[in-house]
Amino acid sequence: MAVLDRVKTLLSELIDEQAASPRDVVAIGVGVPGPVEQASGLLTVPPIMPAWDRFPIRGAFAGEYAAPVFVDNDVNVMATGEHWGGVAKGVDDVIFVKIGTGIGSGLIVGGRLHRGAQGCAGDFGHICVDPEGPLCSCGNTGCLEEMAAAPAIVMQAERCAREGESPPLLALLQEKGELTMKDVGEAARRGDSCALTIVRRSGRLIGQTLASVVNVLNPSMIVIGGGVSRVGNALLAEVRSAIYQRSLPLATRNLPIVMSELDDVAGVVGASVMAASEVLSYAEEREAARTGA
Amino acid sequence: MAVLDRVKTLLSELIDEQAASPRDVVAIGVGVPGPVEQASGLLTVPPIMPAWDRFPIRGAFAGEYAAPVFVDNDVNVMATGEHWGGVAKGVDDVIFVKIGTGIGSGLIVGGRLHRGAQGCAGDFGHICVDPEGPLCSCGNTGCLEEMAAAPAIVMQAERCAREGESPPLLALLQEKGELTMKDVGEAARRGDSCALTIVRRSGRLIGQTLASVVNVLNPSMIVIGGGVSRVGNALLAEVRSAIYQRSLPLATRNLPIVMSELDDVAGVVGASVMAASEVLSYAEEREAARTGA
Repeated sequence: MAVLDRVKTLLSELIDEQAASPRDVVAIGVGVPGPVEQASGLLTVPPIMPAWDRFPIRGAFAGEYAAPVFVDNDVNVMATGEHWGGVAKGVDDVIFVKIGTGIGSGLIVGGRLHRGAQGCAGDFGHICVDPEGPLCSCGNTGCLEEMAAAPAIVMQAERCAREGESPPLLALLQEKGELTMKDVGEAARRGDSCALTIVRRSGRLIGQTLASVVNVLNPSMIVIGGGVSRVGNALLAEVRSAIYQRSLPLATRNLPIVMSELDDVAGVVGASVMAASEVLSYAEEREAARTGA
Repeated sequence: MAVLDRVKTLLSELIDEQAASPRDVVAIGVGVPGPVEQASGLLTVPPIMPAWDRFPIRGAFAGEYAAPVFVDNDVNVMATGEHWGGVAKGVDDVIFVKIGTGIGSGLIVGGRLHRGAQGCAGDFGHICVDPEGPLCSCGNTGCLEEMAAAPAIVMQAERCAREGESPPLLALLQEKGELTMKDVGEAARRGDSCALTIVRRSGRLIGQTLASVVNVLNPSMIVIGGGVSRVGNALLAEVRSAIYQRSLPLATRNLPIVMSELDDVAGVVGASVMAASEVLSYAEEREAARTGA
């Protein structure tokens, strides 16, 4: 796969930079945007990357590295990073929400990452927000992700632009042939009413769905990260308002809803923490077995 | 409160039966149908029993018993019971769903009861299933509980009966002046199409909402209990079918959805387990402090 080849090139450059060799690598941590079966480390029916279904990611590193490879869902990895060294440090019950090409969350429950029985806990992007909504790649209709993630926002912005509702977005669209999430985000920050309406609608749908997650988990903190979250206050305000409106009063009485502090390094920090802690706990077990403790 | 007076009478009769005295009571466990703030043991803005908001339940026993009183949400207590000695014994990640006058769940996460930051985790009855739905006692519209719990089922059955769609239910209604959940359940089991349609609709709404909870938690087992669950297969089949349809494939691959084994004693078993384990862990801490361990 082209993506993994790129990952391996970057890893190898990183090792060279440190004047190290592949033998010095003690553990490899990988985050991927889809549900990962814990026992096997395999992606399983990943809605936004169907060709990766059961692709052996661990095996891709086996030729060059003797180190063990730990694979987890990217949002679990980001949640781990934010809980270890970001805004959620020391907080016991955290929902880390990623809003980007997909929508998902990583759950810290009682101070530990909660993966669930098959490792797909936190995957709230395929909760139905509109039974009459569009068909999602997962096979159901009206999933939150299909209606509120980056592709949906961009598609709506392009439609708005074509319908003449936003001259600045239309100019950009004609210049580049397509819009990106960044374009829509910048337009929203400049106060473009078309972009603002789309971003707020997305925030409202995400907030309404998160309200359900809050009722289920009663967390101490919600952290929002991922590309779409960089749109900023217009999105965050809608997410907050929908959560406060639709959750039980008791659950939101002391509930901070904040932006990720580690932002685009949350995943890197989390993958390192995951790999290091897995290797250390294995070393501890081996030491305990050796000393007969 | 009349309810607590009745509870105290029953408790005192139980003590007499055992030829014991109030001094022999080591701990008291109480389950109540509403969100309980853990630190204080107080019900907080309970939607189906508003008059109990912040009522001091612990205090009600203080005059007669020196024993500590542990108060928790009734579904948490039932989940504890089912996990200790019922169908969920030894299962690490369990959602215990109660469908009765209200709808809620108790969550076992990683082998332990998950109460959440304020003690109201699992309260999925106020998730919105229809934004255009009826006003709920919690202040929002279209909550699952308002549309699918026992009062909603009975109200729809009475309407059906009055509109002449079910002669047997109409006869019952005319005879007694009102219908009960039990009447509707019996009619459904006898194959009354009006009762079946209502029960199935309720099961579908509950299943669709539970599908969201399954996506969030990825449990190993779902256990269904409470009065409405006794309607039986027509309800359970719809709940199952909606969960399997709307959850991620990975999350439902090995997901048993079963009826409570302890049924109406789940709460009694759970309250005893809760009270006993709280007292024992306190005793252990005191012993550890005494011996300097």
